Amino acid sequence: MPKQNIYDDPIFFDGYMKIREKEGNANDLFEIPALLSLLPDLSGKSLLDLGCGYGEHCKMFIDMGAKSVVGVDISEKMLEVAHRENSDPKITYLNIPMEDIDKLDGRFDVVVSSLAIHYVESFAEVVKKIYDKMNTNGVFVFSQEHPIGTAYSNGNRWTKDDNGNKLYVNLSNYCVEGERESTWFVEGVKKYHRTFSTIVNTLVDVGFTVERMIEPFADAEMLKKYPEHDNLKHKPDFLLGKAKKM
Amino acid sequence: MPKQNIYDDPIFFDGYMKIREKEGNANDLFEIPALLSLLPDLSGKSLLDLGCGYGEHCKMFIDMGAKSVVGVDISEKMLEVAHRENSDPKITYLNIPMEDIDKLDGRFDVVVSSLAIHYVESFAEVVKKIYDKMNTNGVFVFSQEHPIGTAYSNGNRWTKDDNGNKLYVNLSNYCVEGERESTWFVEGVKKYHRTFSTIVNTLVDVGFTVERMIEPFADAEMLKKYPEHDNLKHKPDFLLGKAKKM
Repeated sequence: MPKQNIYDDPIFFDGYMKIREKEGNANDLFEIPALLSLLPDLSGKSLLDLGCGYGEHCKMFIDMGAKSVVGVDISEKMLEVAHRENSDPKITYLNIPMEDIDKLDGRFDVVVSSLAIHYVESFAEVVKKIYDKMNTNGVFVFSQEHPIGTAYSNGNRWTKDDNGNKLYVNLSNYCVEGERESTWFVEGVKKYHRTFSTIVNTLVDVGFTVERMIEPFADAEMLKKYPEHDNLKHKPDFLLGKAKKM
Repeated sequence: MPKQNIYDDPIFFDGYMKIREKEGNANDLFEIPALLSLLPDLSGKSLLDLGCGYGEHCKMFIDMGAKSVVGVDISEKMLEVAHRENSDPKITYLNIPMEDIDKLDGRFDVVVSSLAIHYVESFAEVVKKIYDKMNTNGVFVFSQEHPIGTAYSNGNRWTKDDNGNKLYVNLSNYCVEGERESTWFVEGVKKYHRTFSTIVNTLVDVGFTVERMIEPFADAEMLKKYPEHDNLKHKPDFLLGKAKKM
C-alpha cells in the first residue's frame, strides 16, 4: 500500500510552513512543551525521530545532549529543509516511511514522533516495529491529533452561537475507527482515527508500559496572552503519550 | 466532606431499579460483559467490590469461585436489597463510603468497582487506598461513565436532525475537570468529570500498571437486535479499565 505523502504537495507544504511559523501557534504553545516534558534526560542517548519533518526537533535533541539522532520522513521536500537548516554530524536523515524502520540497523534508547502517527494506517504494526527497535528501558514519546479531533468525519465541527462563538464540539463517530478524509490546505488529506483505549491497548499489547498521557489545554496564565486558545478546553488539539520498554 | 448518597433517595432508587431491570439496558449489554472480560480467574481470590449496590456482582464473584467478597456501599437502602437477595456466607456487606476502605482489615487480590467512581470527588486519594489495600499481583478492574459523557455540563447533549435523529454529541468543557450537577431521576446528582489522561495518570502515579482500557459500543450483530444503541458509536456510555499492582 502506498504511504501518504501530503507534505510533498507544494500547496500543502507552503500552507503548513506558514502556520508553523506563526507566533502563538498551537504546536509551539501546547504540543512541543508537552512533548519535551515527556522526554527523559537525553545525554548520551541514541534517538530515532519518526516523521522528523524539517528536522528542528532532531537538532534540538542533539543540543539537549543526544549522542546521535536518526530522523526519518516520507517527504523529500521536508528533508531538503532539514538538510539545509538542521544538519549536524550526529544527525542522519533518511527518506523512508516510518513503516519501514524495521530495516534500520541497530536499536535506539529513545523513539520520538511528533504529530505524525495519525497519518499511519497500521498503527499496531508500527508500534510493534518501534518496540522491536528499542533498547531495554527505552522510552517512546509521541504526540498525535487528539481522538476527539480525528473522530470527526463530516458536517460542521462546531456549534456556534449567533455571534460566532464556539459552544460545542460536534462529536460524531468516536467509536468508528479508521480513515478520515479532510481538507487541510489541500483536499483529500487522509488521517486515521483511533479511540483513546485503542491507543493505550496497542502500546500495552506489544509490551510497552504506559507511563503518562497528556491532553494539553490553555491554563489561566496562557489564556491572558492567547485568549484564542480557550476552545482547547472543549476539544484538546493533541494527545501525547510516554511508554517504556521494560 | 459529606459523601453523596443519592441511592438512598427513594425517587432515585425506584427510577434506577427500573432502568436496571429493563431488558436490553446498556449496563447488561455493554458494561457488565466488558467488566467480566477484564476480570482474572477468581478461583480462591479475595475480592473487594466498591459501590457494590444490591450485591448482584458480589454473588456472581462467589459463583465464579472467589474465596471471599467484601462489598462496600454508601447506600443503606441498596445494601438492604443486597442482604435480602444476594447474601452468602462468603460475602460481607459494609455500609461505608469507598473513601474509607483504608480502615478495612487485610488486603485483597482483586478490587472491582462498577459505575461508582464517577461519584467520587477524590479519585487520586481513593486509587491510592485501593492500591494500598491490594496484594502484589492484585488487579483493579473498574467501570465508570465515559469522560465524553461526564464532560457535559449544560445545554443540549445532542444535536438532532429535523426528524429527531441524533447527529452529534454536543461536547463541551472536556478539559475542565471537576463537579457536574445533573438531573437523573432527581435533581442535583453530582458526578465528577475527569479526562481520559487524568484517569490513566492517576493509576500510574500510585504504582499501577495499566493493562487494558475498554470503551464499549454496539457491533453489527448487537445492532440487529438493539438498533437503539447505535448512538454509542458517537458517545460511548462507559469507560472500563484494568490495572495491576506489580
